[in-house]
Amino acid sequence: MTPPRPTTIIHSPRLSRKLGVELVLASETLQYTGSFKFRAAYNVASKVREAHLITASSGNFGQAIAYACALFGKRCTVVMPTTAPRIKIDAVREYGAEVDLVDVKVKGRLERLGELAKEFPDAYVASPYDDPLVIEGNAGLADELFSLGLELDFIIAPIGGGGLTSGLVRAVRRSGKAVGVIAAEPALANDAAQSFRAGKLISQPDESETIADGARMLRMGDKNWEILRDGLTDVIEVSEDQIREGVRMLFLLANLKAEPTGALALGAVLAQRERFLGKRVCCVISGGNADPAAYAALVASA
Amino acid sequence: MTPPRPTTIIHSPRLSRKLGVELVLASETLQYTGSFKFRAAYNVASKVREAHLITASSGNFGQAIAYACALFGKRCTVVMPTTAPRIKIDAVREYGAEVDLVDVKVKGRLERLGELAKEFPDAYVASPYDDPLVIEGNAGLADELFSLGLELDFIIAPIGGGGLTSGLVRAVRRSGKAVGVIAAEPALANDAAQSFRAGKLISQPDESETIADGARMLRMGDKNWEILRDGLTDVIEVSEDQIREGVRMLFLLANLKAEPTGALALGAVLAQRERFLGKRVCCVISGGNADPAAYAALVASA
Repeated sequence: MTPPRPTTIIHSPRLSRKLGVELVLASETLQYTGSFKFRAAYNVASKVREAHLITASSGNFGQAIAYACALFGKRCTVVMPTTAPRIKIDAVREYGAEVDLVDVKVKGRLERLGELAKEFPDAYVASPYDDPLVIEGNAGLADELFSLGLELDFIIAPIGGGGLTSGLVRAVRRSGKAVGVIAAEPALANDAAQSFRAGKLISQPDESETIADGARMLRMGDKNWEILRDGLTDVIEVSEDQIREGVRMLFLLANLKAEPTGALALGAVLAQRERFLGKRVCCVISGGNADPAAYAALVASA
Repeated sequence: MTPPRPTTIIHSPRLSRKLGVELVLASETLQYTGSFKFRAAYNVASKVREAHLITASSGNFGQAIAYACALFGKRCTVVMPTTAPRIKIDAVREYGAEVDLVDVKVKGRLERLGELAKEFPDAYVASPYDDPLVIEGNAGLADELFSLGLELDFIIAPIGGGGLTSGLVRAVRRSGKAVGVIAAEPALANDAAQSFRAGKLISQPDESETIADGARMLRMGDKNWEILRDGLTDVIEVSEDQIREGVRMLFLLANLKAEPTGALALGAVLAQRERFLGKRVCCVISGGNADPAAYAALVASA
């Protein structure tokens, strides 16, 4: 049934030396559908009873749930913003799902999702992050790191809705290990950083235009925040330049094709270099589904 | 001592469906130093007695032997053409080797290598391909495929000097399996195809300008040819357009950053699509050290 692929562990001696960090990359770029989202999607599609799943996704969860539903013979509808990279829209369709495009300047994605939920009362409305099945699916990534015997000071992963980081926190807790989980967030979409500082869940007023399109959510999920509020070690805000530099370094020094959201964790190391000197750090490279033209422009200046 | 990393097996459902092939990618892009060459280099550096290794390499073997020598505390000198991608020259130096640049329009690389061999009589002159230690190191890749239980009709791998394909043939032979080994060669540098057809070792008159810079050798090695002449199933000539298309498909459908030489095997499938329909094919993606500007130009048109 094609369960999630074990994460791809990469030790890049050149990258470690350049940063002065004992760096391990946990790359999900080679995961089925190209991102960690397949972990959650597989867990959801395999465990819910409903034969039709509906979701809203800026792209990667859409591809993941589309493929997972196809594996289990389920129908799938994905609400996507018209601004999503063309390549992600095509991929969702190619995996066999129906795409419902919404102009987010006119109508919110969640609003449209609500309409569809009414239209299909027998469908399961799958959140890309705010769902215990999603959190548990993502926790598997950190379970794998520990089962490999990796000793770490920090795991850094990107944050959007909080599904990945809350899964990592859960896995670290049950491991009993003293590993800090740090969320890496675009400074342009810093609702998680604001929430973490304020100790309460804060929303972005508008959808950000950060190049890390997987982290444009307006707010974290309630179930995620419940775990993250006292589970995260920190949230690091990453500039757009640091995200770009992260993409370029992964290309040059690790031969990894990462999408901008996937480079956030490395961007967080660049944002706070002294903090990580000599530390054992695992950066989760969350996905690789980059838009070709945008990626080419980034890499051309490497 | 950082032995070679097991090859990274990738099943891309979208790529398989698009080609109508049961495709498995064996990617060496994440191998230490970014290509399969580290397998051979590690084997050579660990087994020879000499404390100084000299080689001539268009790039990837240079990086590999530089890093392998550093691991074993040995001195390393790498002859490289002035036309080699800048990024490969820098990497060889960064791994700790001395780079000896030669203008191949004035003096052959092998001629310069001979001069250095006289200058350093105690050094081991390491061929990137024509050496039993190299062939044995590369054989390990196919050993891994079989130990994973992969059942295959064909393994396709790029050919330059013949070090990789001769290693694969050797491993297939000792496995006792009926797997065909096919060499993928740029049509612009088709000395292996010519040799295979003629049944004797034929050289290119001049260094080719194929974008697959890892396959620009003028002739195969004698020890390689000895194994390949009746060990190869075929040599497929791949056009420059097919190489480019291979790079783009790996980028789009497998999230793999491959260098042009690394895309030759996929290019061979594109060159003879009907031949591989429904077959179980493993394409060896030999390396990922692409020049950023050239890669960006390729991907921008994806």
